[in-house]
Amino acid sequence: MESGTPGGSGPAEPGPRLRGLGGALQAAWASLLSGAQAQAQAEGGCCAPAVAAVLPAGGSGERMGVPTPKQFCPILERPLISYTLQALERVRWIKDIVVAVTGGNMEAMKGIIQRYQHKRISLVEAGVTRHRSIFNGLKALAESQPNSRLSRPEVVIIHDAVRPFVEEDVLLKVVTAAKEHGAAGAIRPLVSTVISPSSDGCLDHSLDRTKHRASEMPQAFLFDVIYEAYQQCSDYDLEFGTECLQLALKYCHVKAKLVEGSPDLWKVTYKRDLYAAESIIKERISQQMCVVMDTKEDEEHVGRCLEEMLKNELNHVKVMSGRDLQQVILEQCYNFVCVNVMTSDFEKTQKLLNVLDESNLSILYPVVVISVHFLDNKSIPFGRKMEDLMQIKELAREVKKRNILLCGLLIYYPQDEQKLQESLRQGATIIATLIKERDSGLIGQLLIA
Amino acid sequence: MESGTPGGSGPAEPGPRLRGLGGALQAAWASLLSGAQAQAQAEGGCCAPAVAAVLPAGGSGERMGVPTPKQFCPILERPLISYTLQALERVRWIKDIVVAVTGGNMEAMKGIIQRYQHKRISLVEAGVTRHRSIFNGLKALAESQPNSRLSRPEVVIIHDAVRPFVEEDVLLKVVTAAKEHGAAGAIRPLVSTVISPSSDGCLDHSLDRTKHRASEMPQAFLFDVIYEAYQQCSDYDLEFGTECLQLALKYCHVKAKLVEGSPDLWKVTYKRDLYAAESIIKERISQQMCVVMDTKEDEEHVGRCLEEMLKNELNHVKVMSGRDLQQVILEQCYNFVCVNVMTSDFEKTQKLLNVLDESNLSILYPVVVISVHFLDNKSIPFGRKMEDLMQIKELAREVKKRNILLCGLLIYYPQDEQKLQESLRQGATIIATLIKERDSGLIGQLLIA
Repeated sequence: MESGTPGGSGPAEPGPRLRGLGGALQAAWASLLSGAQAQAQAEGGCCAPAVAAVLPAGGSGERMGVPTPKQFCPILERPLISYTLQALERVRWIKDIVVAVTGGNMEAMKGIIQRYQHKRISLVEAGVTRHRSIFNGLKALAESQPNSRLSRPEVVIIHDAVRPFVEEDVLLKVVTAAKEHGAAGAIRPLVSTVISPSSDGCLDHSLDRTKHRASEMPQAFLFDVIYEAYQQCSDYDLEFGTECLQLALKYCHVKAKLVEGSPDLWKVTYKRDLYAAESIIKERISQQMCVVMDTKEDEEHVGRCLEEMLKNELNHVKVMSGRDLQQVILEQCYNFVCVNVMTSDFEKTQKLLNVLDESNLSILYPVVVISVHFLDNKSIPFGRKMEDLMQIKELAREVKKRNILLCGLLIYYPQDEQKLQESLRQGATIIATLIKERDSGLIGQLLIA
Repeated sequence: MESGTPGGSGPAEPGPRLRGLGGALQAAWASLLSGAQAQAQAEGGCCAPAVAAVLPAGGSGERMGVPTPKQFCPILERPLISYTLQALERVRWIKDIVVAVTGGNMEAMKGIIQRYQHKRISLVEAGVTRHRSIFNGLKALAESQPNSRLSRPEVVIIHDAVRPFVEEDVLLKVVTAAKEHGAAGAIRPLVSTVISPSSDGCLDHSLDRTKHRASEMPQAFLFDVIYEAYQQCSDYDLEFGTECLQLALKYCHVKAKLVEGSPDLWKVTYKRDLYAAESIIKERISQQMCVVMDTKEDEEHVGRCLEEMLKNELNHVKVMSGRDLQQVILEQCYNFVCVNVMTSDFEKTQKLLNVLDESNLSILYPVVVISVHFLDNKSIPFGRKMEDLMQIKELAREVKKRNILLCGLLIYYPQDEQKLQESLRQGATIIATLIKERDSGLIGQLLIA
């Protein structure tokens, strides 16, 4: 495929497309893989192609067995499609993301974009089939409308709304390969043997698993290639086809490069996939926690002990000190343990909550905050301490509105060092449980270790 | 395939195997589908074939990305394979279950059988490939060893250790179809398009999704058919083959009947599948709860109110009264709410725990028990009540050893009816959360509504 082909009215920066330049381009792009240079390259790099993405999201989700189309099913109260948009958005060199949704879901989709502050998104109306939805997305990119902010890209990524775990590296691989080959797509080994039935419902033959692959997403194409393929393809293709790579092959004679993808690329298809997605997301946002404490000398000992215990007990979790809260928030830590050694009030916890509130951190994920207090039996009796701390229920109800899940933890603080260690270990287990489960049914509870 | 074929030394009850009898047999078996007659038929029915199952479980689970082979990965602390054995065991007409495990896992497997009280299981040594493991299982069924309790079945089911959600109806369908056709297997629609790569890693062609299916498990065979196929097949087949149906076709010219299976048949392959399996199991055992309370008049009002609230708030959950505990346990209810209106002790809860302990209910799944108490502020102040109830920590630690997860719930009991309803609603939410999460990190906690 060369520039100037019929159907290609010329992207703003056509750039070199010949196979001979592929190696140089690949090298330039490979440096992006390091991640650190991504931004500079995307903003200033002259040889990076203009890339857009099309996301068909018009499906009805009938396989899920639930009335809501699967791309709108909530995970931690946020629709699945928002996670996929987030995954594409954070790749800065994707300039535009065109989402095709049905007319009936258009307003809901606008609400999602606004609520979760998605950027660079344009909406088009979905067609009755996946191929027609993709075609509508491509048309929006091809034809410069008077009021459209879209421009014709050199390379277009096609992805699914229901594959939320796509990583930058595979996107980069398919884009780079598409630039060289005209088309590229992610593949995976087959999990089951594929068979061909005869007309009477019996086995005709089975396929050699080593010679076949599952075609997954993302895929990428030179825009002119895939747009021409869609313009030329038959109504039968648009109605019953399932494979964009096949269209590029059939109508533009472009043999797509196949790129081995990771297991993360799987498609949320059944209800069990929603369960899996929720567990994966919960696990990802539970990988680090921040311990906030004062540096007063009398408080520091037990606070440090708890921090050490958390590091020992949760050795898969990165435990950070909250000295520089802004930095912690920038690192997208969604779990906070606020240590109050001497007090039964929530002054310090309230300060933390205020900082979190200003940061907008909880827009995308529920943030867990655990207000830790200690009971040494010397100053205040247990019952009294409990009564003081029960104010947490009101506070928790208030911050829940902002997607912050607040719990209290009262740790018994005996003089005996060994018993203290045991209390702290129990406390660490409870903290780990609250962070892992992230269930709003337990907000405002005062747990006891 | 007729009886008396080479390799068939004749099952105990050969029974009619000719195609012409298939319809009558199918009708007889179809009646089993109703479920109620299954037991009578299996015990007394003369036309039901002798059925055994072979479960290859020698895999290394490399795709899972964890060191433990996937069939031994724990779900709610119980190995995955135990769930699959449980699914096969409860089908009473499966007489023997032969499991092929590697020598290194033999002792672990014996431990699993003993701990979870599995019945009708025989162990054989796995081969280095799946086909060799299955062959070893078939050999054990074919050759009557002096000390073996196994006998040659008429029909053999082949299933996977990592497909724990297989239901009786699909097992019955494949067995019935195997009896008629010689071989049968469950299939599912393809989730992804299947493609064939060329040698340079590019797309050669894509397959029409409507003309292909994924071959899943269970499969079933006339024993003589599949045993002969394995005896005749090449070393190449045994090393690299993946499809038993293909062996029956290639070596015995038996065209397997394909049976549409449910999505539940999916294979636990990746880590995300373990997450999905855990969520499905948790959901299944959270579908009913039992409320245990005294019938004394002064206690009954608030107890009934809570029961009603649970029914309203958790309308997907069956809420039963615990008048006849033995019956409730027989119905495999794994969630108990013990209502103590006037007392701050655990006498009644302890009685319930004793009954559960004697029932062995918690061998297979962790049982959740929530001891509910009320605070009316008239009799005992909050702090004092709390102190009394904190004994629950010791009790919870004790019963955890028997896989019972005990928590306390203190519900505020105001005079105002509207406020009481609000307290009870909060209590119902907390109960639902504890049952849903089933996390041992919260045992012994006293939650407050």
